[in-house]
Formats: sequence, structure tokens, C-alpha cells
Amino acid sequence: MLPGKTRTATIADPDLAQKGRLSHEWARARMSIVEKIVDKNSKNRPLEGFTIGFCLHVTKETSVLVMAAKRLGAKVALCSANPLSVQDDIAVFLQQEGARVFAWRGETAQEYRDCIRQVLALSPQIITDDGSDMHTAAHRAKTKGIVGGTEETTSGVRRLLALEKSGRLMYPIIAVNNARTKYLFDNRHGTGQSTLDGIMRATGMFLPGARVVVCGYGWVGKGVAAKARGMGAVVTVTEVDPVRALEARMDGFEVTTLLNAAPYGDLFITCTGQTSVIRKEHFAKMKDGAILANTGHFDVEIDASYLYSNAKPEEIRPGVERFSIAGKKLYLLSKGRVVNLVAAEGHPPEVMALSFANQLMSILHVAKNHAKMEEKVYSVPEDIDVQVAKSALDAMGVRIDEMTEEQKKYQNSE
Amino acid sequence: MLPGKTRTATIADPDLAQKGRLSHEWARARMSIVEKIVDKNSKNRPLEGFTIGFCLHVTKETSVLVMAAKRLGAKVALCSANPLSVQDDIAVFLQQEGARVFAWRGETAQEYRDCIRQVLALSPQIITDDGSDMHTAAHRAKTKGIVGGTEETTSGVRRLLALEKSGRLMYPIIAVNNARTKYLFDNRHGTGQSTLDGIMRATGMFLPGARVVVCGYGWVGKGVAAKARGMGAVVTVTEVDPVRALEARMDGFEVTTLLNAAPYGDLFITCTGQTSVIRKEHFAKMKDGAILANTGHFDVEIDASYLYSNAKPEEIRPGVERFSIAGKKLYLLSKGRVVNLVAAEGHPPEVMALSFANQLMSILHVAKNHAKMEEKVYSVPEDIDVQVAKSALDAMGVRIDEMTEEQKKYQNSE
Amino acid sequence: MLPGKTRTATIADPDLAQKGRLSHEWARARMSIVEKIVDKNSKNRPLEGFTIGFCLHVTKETSVLVMAAKRLGAKVALCSANPLSVQDDIAVFLQQEGARVFAWRGETAQEYRDCIRQVLALSPQIITDDGSDMHTAAHRAKTKGIVGGTEETTSGVRRLLALEKSGRLMYPIIAVNNARTKYLFDNRHGTGQSTLDGIMRATGMFLPGARVVVCGYGWVGKGVAAKARGMGAVVTVTEVDPVRALEARMDGFEVTTLLNAAPYGDLFITCTGQTSVIRKEHFAKMKDGAILANTGHFDVEIDASYLYSNAKPEEIRPGVERFSIAGKKLYLLSKGRVVNLVAAEGHPPEVMALSFANQLMSILHVAKNHAKMEEKVYSVPEDIDVQVAKSALDAMGVRIDEMTEEQKKYQNSE
Amino acid sequence: MLPGKTRTATIADPDLAQKGRLSHEWARARMSIVEKIVDKNSKNRPLEGFTIGFCLHVTKETSVLVMAAKRLGAKVALCSANPLSVQDDIAVFLQQEGARVFAWRGETAQEYRDCIRQVLALSPQIITDDGSDMHTAAHRAKTKGIVGGTEETTSGVRRLLALEKSGRLMYPIIAVNNARTKYLFDNRHGTGQSTLDGIMRATGMFLPGARVVVCGYGWVGKGVAAKARGMGAVVTVTEVDPVRALEARMDGFEVTTLLNAAPYGDLFITCTGQTSVIRKEHFAKMKDGAILANTGHFDVEIDASYLYSNAKPEEIRPGVERFSIAGKKLYLLSKGRVVNLVAAEGHPPEVMALSFANQLMSILHVAKNHAKMEEKVYSVPEDIDVQVAKSALDAMGVRIDEMTEEQKKYQNSE
Repeated sequence: MLPGKTRTATIADPDLAQKGRLSHEWARARMSIVEKIVDKNSKNRPLEGFTIGFCLHVTKETSVLVMAAKRLGAKVALCSANPLSVQDDIAVFLQQEGARVFAWRGETAQEYRDCIRQVLALSPQIITDDGSDMHTAAHRAKTKGIVGGTEETTSGVRRLLALEKSGRLMYPIIAVNNARTKYLFDNRHGTGQSTLDGIMRATGMFLPGARVVVCGYGWVGKGVAAKARGMGAVVTVTEVDPVRALEARMDGFEVTTLLNAAPYGDLFITCTGQTSVIRKEHFAKMKDGAILANTGHFDVEIDASYLYSNAKPEEIRPGVERFSIAGKKLYLLSKGRVVNLVAAEGHPPEVMALSFANQLMSILHVAKNHAKMEEKVYSVPEDIDVQVAKSALDAMGVRIDEMTEEQKKYQNSE
Repeated sequence: MLPGKTRTATIADPDLAQKGRLSHEWARARMSIVEKIVDKNSKNRPLEGFTIGFCLHVTKETSVLVMAAKRLGAKVALCSANPLSVQDDIAVFLQQEGARVFAWRGETAQEYRDCIRQVLALSPQIITDDGSDMHTAAHRAKTKGIVGGTEETTSGVRRLLALEKSGRLMYPIIAVNNARTKYLFDNRHGTGQSTLDGIMRATGMFLPGARVVVCGYGWVGKGVAAKARGMGAVVTVTEVDPVRALEARMDGFEVTTLLNAAPYGDLFITCTGQTSVIRKEHFAKMKDGAILANTGHFDVEIDASYLYSNAKPEEIRPGVERFSIAGKKLYLLSKGRVVNLVAAEGHPPEVMALSFANQLMSILHVAKNHAKMEEKVYSVPEDIDVQVAKSALDAMGVRIDEMTEEQKKYQNSE
Repeated sequence: MLPGKTRTATIADPDLAQKGRLSHEWARARMSIVEKIVDKNSKNRPLEGFTIGFCLHVTKETSVLVMAAKRLGAKVALCSANPLSVQDDIAVFLQQEGARVFAWRGETAQEYRDCIRQVLALSPQIITDDGSDMHTAAHRAKTKGIVGGTEETTSGVRRLLALEKSGRLMYPIIAVNNARTKYLFDNRHGTGQSTLDGIMRATGMFLPGARVVVCGYGWVGKGVAAKARGMGAVVTVTEVDPVRALEARMDGFEVTTLLNAAPYGDLFITCTGQTSVIRKEHFAKMKDGAILANTGHFDVEIDASYLYSNAKPEEIRPGVERFSIAGKKLYLLSKGRVVNLVAAEGHPPEVMALSFANQLMSILHVAKNHAKMEEKVYSVPEDIDVQVAKSALDAMGVRIDEMTEEQKKYQNSE
Repeated sequence: MLPGKTRTATIADPDLAQKGRLSHEWARARMSIVEKIVDKNSKNRPLEGFTIGFCLHVTKETSVLVMAAKRLGAKVALCSANPLSVQDDIAVFLQQEGARVFAWRGETAQEYRDCIRQVLALSPQIITDDGSDMHTAAHRAKTKGIVGGTEETTSGVRRLLALEKSGRLMYPIIAVNNARTKYLFDNRHGTGQSTLDGIMRATGMFLPGARVVVCGYGWVGKGVAAKARGMGAVVTVTEVDPVRALEARMDGFEVTTLLNAAPYGDLFITCTGQTSVIRKEHFAKMKDGAILANTGHFDVEIDASYLYSNAKPEEIRPGVERFSIAGKKLYLLSKGRVVNLVAAEGHPPEVMALSFANQLMSILHVAKNHAKMEEKVYSVPEDIDVQVAKSALDAMGVRIDEMTEEQKKYQNSE
């Protein structure tokens, strides 16, 4: 920790540590999947002798991962993957618990880079990153002693693949993003729920009988549409992919073009990963009172700039801006930014648990197998994916069947 | 308005009026049912010549009702049905619009009574009340000139029935509470949605795959159970009424005793109207991490006093208290108080619109028919109930069929 | 039994008795609600000393009721409530089991009346009727010794109410039709399932993604609409009652006029109890290939006579007639008659069990209380309704909560 | 057609041709996807000059495919892919329409092979097969002039891959089975609906409130479970794959081991593709009255042989056998064979339409591109898959969005 910063807070503000502890405990109670992995492995202390450098968003969920690694024997050091996302109470709490923490809310760009360097200075053997800023820094600094790492995000993986391609990747890295236990649940159920949660927090609007138009029927759209219907809404789906459109229709949804749906939608939710999905021509046809929300990663799905250029926004409720356009009023949520994060709390910890269980088991995999691994970007091993699912079921108290010997034979027979 | 109070605020704080206006406009846009009634009747100004005295919670939804009455020709005067529920921005806004407002947040008991008297001093012909404090005051003061009234709540109606029984009721009053367009929607859909909304705001917990135990399968329980399932939860219903229990099972829910469900529930929601539904013996069997929420009117459904007496609550998140009992942790939301109001915003305006549409049409009914009405408590006339439904459909842009002459005959044939 | 009729069959055709036994056993296994009532009461043989005259459709479900009464101690005699609905195998089986049976398929009108007389000649104390032909006959014949009865249908009750009104009713009668355990389940779930079952058997049509238009949103319409959606259909509801229309919309269904829905419906199902719901003007707008089914009691809901008058029907599959009208083809199922009975098997035995459990308990009630009962038409006592629900839950192995003493007090407190 | 067989029937029995025509017309009306493809391409007659040899099940759905090829200009010749599956009315109808048909119900093995030879003797350029018997015969006979083919099944493809591997494949073949528009709809929705349809036809059992245990949560299990819940059943899922088990739970289903579910299930449905899923140890724990159905392709999923060896089956209803085992009665449907085909009609024509649309477009692809294709087994080209989905949407009257130029760029940007 940089002098005079969070350390001061620790001393000055024991309440902050206590707040962090409570927040950590809440998340930990909701993330028992991770706990179960720890319980199963803690006897052997498989991370004994390893220092792990984490570069993650310093949130209550992250604190559960960091403490889990610690309980498995690792020394842990943490900086933030984003200068603005640090929860100071969590930072203070982790420091109290013996983690080395170099993070506080509102770091300057220089301080942000310094924090990364401080972690690397502790000579971690394993690096767990979100966005690859620490991996990149380690490569630039040619840091010695790193035996492997993990990376949470797609965009981080892209940078690593570039390194791999040019033959400069220094150690094996597991890309956590494409485990089945991540995308099957995170996108559909995690974003599905938190999107509606965010919209209800922002607007308090009544969903039963409301016409909800869901743009896009990928995993996120599937989750949002199913849950909106589950709340009583009359849901229309729009798509550009005919196969997905057909899926939506056979799942019982109305499917049509956005231009057709524009005049009757009460609420529009974009989940496409595309740009300018809702735009001028759609605004023009919408009815008075229509509400616009985006739950895609980037704030390009609704052409908010058109709205801001053509009408003066009035914040009629926190996070709800009203635009008077063409004789009617449209309402934009969270400035068109990802509504489940801005208006609610993003993914529930139970879903982050699946993702971080993959992280933790990938770390264990690296710790055990790094000697046999090459300087490559690896997928999460299938057996880890299965183990995470098993742990999730365990944590829920769910028992399932196992194949009999006869069935194993049958499966492999012609 | 009492001198030196909100009036001062008006002058001192034009921002408050503007905030009130925006809040009013938001509600009004969500309550177009009420607006449609106004649009349909505004030409004739059927409330011309009437002063209406309102004693209601001074909220954005109420402002829509008051302004609607005003647009139909009435003079309007308003005080609060509760000294603590006034939204000052709304009060200031209504005053600016020409209503006579006698209400501010934090009135003393004396001021509260004075406000009611101030409204009565304006000689209203019609009184619209919530709880019957103004009706009672008018009867005590033997206020002259009142031709009729309406009452929103069950408890208010109870007081009026006592007056009627003793032969002292001075004017006809319509009891709005038992219109079909109120209870079929308000309880099931309004409470159904807002209960889950409140729980998500308080906890951010993940509903897909969670075991939710819904205690009670009346209208509220039906709504909560259906919507919890709609979000992906695995729902169990408990009941004491065998017919309702059978309904729940045939609606596809697991049904069992609360004692059986106690060990596996992740979330318990009481919607029974009963006392001590979740109590010591159930707490004893619950698993670590169980969350307890009540959405019934009174805070007696969960035996919170047992928890407070036997463990020290820790507020682990706003509105979430943790109790360590018998080697595990239980979480109580909103101190066992009605979670949809405490943790979220209560009923969405679209549902309040149904209730207030009944109010507005009952006011119109009294204005037109008071000469023919007796000093009795009336139900909402069936045709008003139907009209409200029609207006709601209109507001949604929904058209429905009408019976042909042949069908009308057929219906009345043997 | 009339000489030379079913008796001969018994002797001549032991296979028929065996077929009847298997059919009875299948129904009995599905109607354990009735069995549980028998089990609970069989020790005391509460119907010992009573002869019961049944005038019911002689089906496998009826055989379960008749045998139940017998096991509770009654002598049982049976004739058919309709000359065409007798299942001879069941008649023969019941006779073998010691019931007195006067019924065979294809009775003439004269034989039908003679069969009723034969039952009355056995001097029953209790009469259980379906349509009141036996009650009426008993009144005309001034049959002595009858202490009470039950009646299954609305139309039968109507005849009895006329007798009551004119002061000529000879004994108390319980009207089984309006028990909550009948209408809450029979109509919504029983008709709901069997309607879709009938349509699938008749057409084999694909429901996921099909546009299904449900006319009427009473209990039957609610059941049909929910289950059609449950199969993946995109459901539209039409109604003439605005409150029900609003219910449908808030339950998440598209609601519009039938004329609006006519052009896009793939399948239309009438459940209104009204006449001429789908008629010329709707046929005119329908698309090629539309399928028409009625599940209302009478075959007047679809104006089939218009179709038969204006096009030559071609039976393209059993029970599916094709009409070429105005350049397109429409398909009428079961000639517009109640599709769940004609194309499938009507209500499943599990639902008939609820109805017959009410019958059986009403018989027990009459046997026990007739001395205290007046010559009136009674509703099913509330406690029987509750008992039936309890038995149904028992039969399913479902246990529910009971009110504590504290809760009973609370319920009755102010 | 072989002399003296179906030809005689044609002359002798014009009613059969008419019955075949009606059956064809019904299927064709339900398979407008295929029709739309014909409409779009019929002007150019793209199959002009091609003779197509079909070796398919001679059903009403197949008649739609064969007639479609004919309308696009092809000469068509047909024999059966199975000696027992021919619908003679369809065979006669197709012959009347000008197809060369060599098929009748009950062919001997020798006749079956002769029929294939007869088709090959007509020198088809394209072969469309189901099981690869005709492809194999053509390879054995070294039939000249074949430019390409298609194959419907997995098992047929396996044989072709063996030929390809050994370098003996004579012409390019498209494997239709793994198009997205086949497996996403056929398995989940087609089998999902028809399985419940078959169970209702066989048993008439009541699904609301019934405990249904679905073994396996692949596409078929997902469809069956969702639709059983949609009918009101309380559904439990069993699985051996932890990820799928987790999916089931987060979709809101109870998940447990089959041994745990055995004592409470009212209905068990196997959809696993595995052997001996329900076996002795499960039978032992089941309750009286449990019903067992299999919807997997092979009749090995329920260990029926155990039942047949240990109890005498009684056919209590058509297709429903009762076994008295260990003091209780179990009911096996369709002898454990695939219940949707045996007890109902298999996939609805609307779903076969998707599969046959892929067939038809693959035939068109071969006709156009064979010169550029190699002697390989090809997947269905992605654009055909998309075209089929588009045609399906067209047929349903559904319009969807198209990507703008800006969006196409965005998609391909970094």
C-alpha cells in the first residue's frame, strides 16, 4: 500500500475495516461454491509457497477469491484492475487480514501503474489478471519467476494471444472466460436478472402487462426475455439472425422488426453487442412514455448521442432522463450505459462465484501443472469446468447421478 | 397551507417545485388510466362547482389524482393522511398549480389535526379520505354542506360502518377498497412485483435456482410465487387452507409444511396476514444463510422479536440484519416490516392508477348522484369497476370485443 | 337389470367383465382421493343399511364412486344418466361385484325410463343423480322412503330449484356443482389439459411458435391459455368483459378483438359459454390453414352451420373437416362440438376424483344428517369442500400446516 | 413399382388415392416452409434435367418433399427406407401424381432390396437417403451418373464417412442432420411436444400437480421438462452431467438423483440416449401407480426386460402394461419404446418441414454446385441453414431486422 493512503484510513477508521468485513462476509456467504473448493483442498495447502499477484476490481466478490487463495496457503498481493472501481472498505479489510494491498479509490493513472509495479516487486509466481495490464507490465519488465497466470476477460485474452503469436509469451495462461460454467449462467441468468433489477430500481415501472421489446436473442437476450415474461410482461424479440429469431418464436415470443415494434413498446432493452440498434428512425415511431435501457457492454446500442443532440435531457428521477422529441417524451436509463451495473449491482455474487471458482481452480491447476505447461494461452480444462459445476451443485446441496460401468461402456460402444 | 411552512419553502426553493413537477409528471405518465378518464370527461367539467377535500398520503401518485379532479372543474384542497408521509416537493408543486395545500413532512399531531380542520373550513362538498380521519372530523364538527365522500382503506371503512350502524352517518360514502379492479391487480401483481423488487434491492441475491419458500397462497402469495418462478427460482408454497394448498400444487408448485421446508429454503417470504408464521421452531431448522422477508401489512408474520431477543443483529447491508443463532446465520430484511414498501417503492404507479381511477370515478359518481344516494356506505358501482378496466385497456391501447345483440339475448335466455 | 340383456353378456362374455375390471382398476388407481375417503371411513361402515340409487354415466370413473359407496356399507343400484354413454364392460363388471345394474349401451327411450323405474323399485334411501331424471321420476311416482339425495349438474339443479320453489320438493338435496374443489380445478386444469390433448390428437399440430387465439378468459379460458403458452404457443386472448381482459393482459397475454386476431391465428379455441363467437365476419378474415376448435359445453360457439351451408366439408383426418371458403381452407375440429370430449377422453380421472369425492362425502353427509335437513337444495357444506381438498392432498402425499392456537385467536381478533 | 402390387391397388381402390391426397394436402398445409422454398425457386425450375432417387419413409411428410422436388423440375423416383413404414395411400397418391414409386407396406427383405435397385435403374443424378441403404447399393453397383446426394441420419452418415475414409466415396454428400435448424427445433420442441402428446393419448393422466421426473437434460430433456412444467406438472430433473444439472436447477427445476426421486415420481420419462437408466433398484423404490415412459431412440433406457422377467404384464389400456412388483403396480408405456412415435404421431409436420427444407435446399445446392464439390461428406452450408430459418419465418409471416452497413462494419471491427 502506498504510504499515507489506505493505510492511514486503516488506522484512522476502524469502522471502515468492519464495514469491509461485513461486506466480505455477506459475499462469502453467497459464494459458497468458492468456499467448498477451499474446504476440499485446504488440508494440503496446495498454494503453499506461491505468491499470487491479483489485478482485479477490488470488490466484495474479489475479496472472497483473494481470501480463498490465502486459505489455500498462498501469499497474496492485490492491486486494482481499474482506478475507479476500488471499494476502500474491502481494501482495508483485506490488508487487515494479511493481504498486501495496493489500491484505493481514485488512483491517478501514475499511481495505478505504480500499484501494479508494487505487486510485481513482490515476485509473484502466479498472476491473476482482469484486462492483462499486469501481464503486460510483467512482460515489459521481464519479471522473473512467474510460472503461470490466468486472465478473466476476452479483451485481456486478445492481448495475450498477440503476445503468444509473436512468440513472446513468457508463461502459460488460462483464459477463464469461455468455460461453460461461466457463459451458460453468467450471461443468461446473471445479466437476465440484474437487468430487470436495474430497470425496476431506476423506474419502479410495472412489468405485468407491459410491452417489453428485447433487442437480441443471444444468451443475454434469452435470459432477459424469459425473466421479463416471468414477471408478467408481454415480450417481443427483435433479431438480425434468422435462426435465433426462429428460436425466439418457438420459445413463445412475438418476433418482428424493431420498426414494427417501435410504436407499441413500453420498454426497450438492447442486448446485442451491436452499435446503433435503436436509432433515429425508431425514436421517431415510438409512443409517448417509452423507456430505453441498454444492457450490452458498450453504450453504443442505443444512439444516445442523437437524443442528447436533439433534445435537452431532464433528469426526472435518478438515472432517468426525459427527452422531449417530436411531440412525445422518451426516457433513457443510465445514459444508455449498461443498466444492470449502473442502476443495480451487476451480477449477483452467486454468479460471480461460478466465474471465480473457475479462477481459483485454474490457479490451482497452474500451481500444480505449470512445469508441464507451455507458453500458451489455454482454455479452462474440461475437468475444471465439470468440477465447478459439481461444486456449485454441492453448495446448493444438490446430488446427481453417476454413470454405471455398464453405461460408460454403452457410451463408448458403436 | 399553514403560514411560514411550505409556503416559505416555495419562495425559498423554486428547485423544490421543479422537482415536484418532474416527479408528478413521471407518475402522471405512468398513470394514463387516470388521464384517460379526465380526457373523456373534461369537456363537461362535471366537478365544476364542487370543492373536494382530500386527506391522502401526499405522494406523486396522489398529485395525479388531485390534479385530475382539478382539471374536471373542482376546487381542490389537500392535507396529509399521515404526518410522516408528505413529499414536500409534491406539496409545493400542487400549491403552485392552484391547489390549497395544508401539509408538510414532520407535522406535529396538533398541526396534523389543524391541517384537516383547515381543509374542512373551505367547505368541501365531497371528501376523499384515506383512513377516515377527515370523515370523522367532519362528523364531530358537524360540518355542513358535504354531499358525499369516498374512502380508500378497509380500516377507514370500518369506522364509517360504525357510524352508519349507529345512524349517525351524515352523507353517502363509497368504499373503494373492494372493487375487482383493485384487488385482482393490486395484490397479485402490484405486491408480487414490488416484493421481489424490494428483496433484490436489499440483498442483490441470485434468484435462478434459489429455493424460495412462499408462506401463504392468497392473492399476494399467488403473485409472489408466480413471479419468483418467473425469475427462475425453485418455489415451495406453504398454506393452512387445504383448498389453496391444492391450487398451489396444481399450479405446479411444491407444497409442504414450513417445518419441512425450513431446512432447505434460501429465502422465505411471508404473505399470510397471520401472526408468528415463521417462528422459533422454524429458525431452529433453517440452514446457514437463510434470508427472511415479510410482505404482509403488519410486521408480525416473522417472529422478529425472538430473533432480536436471542441474538445481536448486525446490519451487514442497509436493511439486512444478520443474526447468529444456533451455529448459523440468518438474515432478516427490513426488520420484518413490509419489504416492498421499506426496501423498494411499494406499488408501481400503474397499479395505483387502477385504485385512483376508482377514486376519481367514485367522486364523479357522488357528484352526479348524491341527491339520490342515502346516508350509507356503498360499494363501488359495478359499472365503475368495468369503466376502470375499460380505461386501463384504453390506456394500454387494447381493444376488446363487445357482445352482439344475439349474444346479449343468449346470455339472458334459459 | 332387464332380462336377457347385460346379464346374458356377463355369462356369454367373461372377457368383458375382465376388461371392465381392468378399466375400473386403472381409474381407481388414478382416483385415490375417493379411495382415501373410503379408507378413512370404512371401519364404521357409515352407509350400512342404506340403499343408494345412482343415475350416472356408466363410466370407469363412476364405477369407482359406486364401489366406494358399496365398500362403505351401502347397497348400490345403478342406471344410466344417458342411454348412449354406457360402457358395457363397466356395467358387467359392477354387476359381477354385486351392484344391481340396469344399463346397457343403446337403450331405447322406453328402456331408459324402465331402468330408472327398476332402480326406484329397490326403494333407495338416497339418490345420486346427474341431470335429475331420477329425482323427477321419484317425485312423479311419489316414491316413499327417500331421505335425501345429491345432484351433479347445474341443469339438474335448476329442475330441483323449481320443485323447491313450488313447495313440492320431497327431500333434501345437495348440489355438488358449486364446491370450490370442483370449479377451481375441473374447469381450469381439467378442461385446460384435455382441450389441448384433444386438439393434438385430432391434428398433431405443432404448438411451439403457433399463434393460438383463446376466446374467453373465464376459468376454462385461463386454463387453456396458460397451458397453450406452457407448450410454447404465442397466445392471444379475446374477451367481452373488460376486467377479465385486463386480467389476461397482466397475466402476460396479448389481448385484442377477435376481428383483429382473425387474420393471424393458427388455431382458435372458444371457451366462452356464448353463441356465435366465431362467425362469418371472422371466417372472412382468417388466413389459409386456420384451425377452429370449441371446448364450450354447447356447439354454438363457432358458427359451424355457416360453414356447412357455404362449403362442402372434406374429412381430411378423423374429426378434422376442411372447408374451402373465399379462396382459403379452414379446418373445423369435431364439428364444433366440445373438443376435449369428442377428440380426447374429457376430464382425466384425477379431476373427476375431486368431483366424485364431493359426491361421496355429500352422500355421507345426507346419510348422517338427513333427519336434521329440510326439503331444500343445499350447497356442499364448506367442511366437505375442505375435507375433499385435504383428501386430495393426502392422496398426493402432501402435508400442510395447521393454524396454531395463537393464530386462530389472531384471525378472530379485531 | 413392382407389378401386381400397389399398381393394382391404384386401379382397384381410387379411394386410397383420394385418402393419400387428403393426407398429403394436410401435411403440405402444415409444411409451408417447404412450399415457400418451392415458390421462391419454381420459376427457374432449378432441378430440370435431374432425376432424384429418394429412399425415405413413405409418409405424408415425405410426399411433400417429393412433390416439391417435382415442382422444381426434377423427375422423382421413390422407394422406402424401411419395409414396414410405407403408407400405401401416400404411395398410390404419389404414383398418380407422376412419381415413380416402388414401395408398399410389408415388403419382404428381397423386395425391399429390389425396390432400391429399381430406383437406381432409372439413373438418378442425385440420391436422397435415410440410412444410406441406397448410397451403399449405388456404391456396390458402381452406378454411373450420380453427381451428389444427401443423407438424413447420423447412422447413415457414419457409413458414408467410412466410405470417404477408405477413399471410395463416389460423389459429394451433404449430411443434413447437424444443421442448427434441425437440432435446435426437432429435438427440443418436436420431441418435447410429441412425448407429452403420446403420454396423454396412452394414459389420459392428469399433468397439473403431477410429479414428473425427467431423466436427462439434453435438448430433448430440456424440451420435455419445459413443456411438462408448462402443463402444470411439478418437474424433477436427473442428470449425470454436472453442467447440465446446474442448467436444470437454474432453469427452476428440482434436481436430484433418480434414487431420491424414485419414491415420489408419478411419471418418469427417459431422454438420455443411455442404457438401463431406470432399473431394478429404482423400480424397487417407486410408489404404487408410477408410470414409465421412454422417449429416447432405443428401447434400452428403461430396463423393461427386468419387468417382463419378474412380473406378468397386463394390458390395462392400449399401450399401457401393468406390472405387479413388490406389492405395488407399475405401468410401462409402449413397452419402453419411443413413446412419441408409438403412442402418438412422432414429430409434427411443422418440424419435419425444417428438416426437409434442409433436404430440399441441400438438393438444390448439389444440383447447382456438384461440379465444384469433392467426393466428401459435407455439412449443410451455413447459408442454407440461415435460408431455412428465413423461410420458416416467412412461412409464419414473421419479418426480422437486417444489419445496417454501419453494423456490418462494427461487427468486423476490432
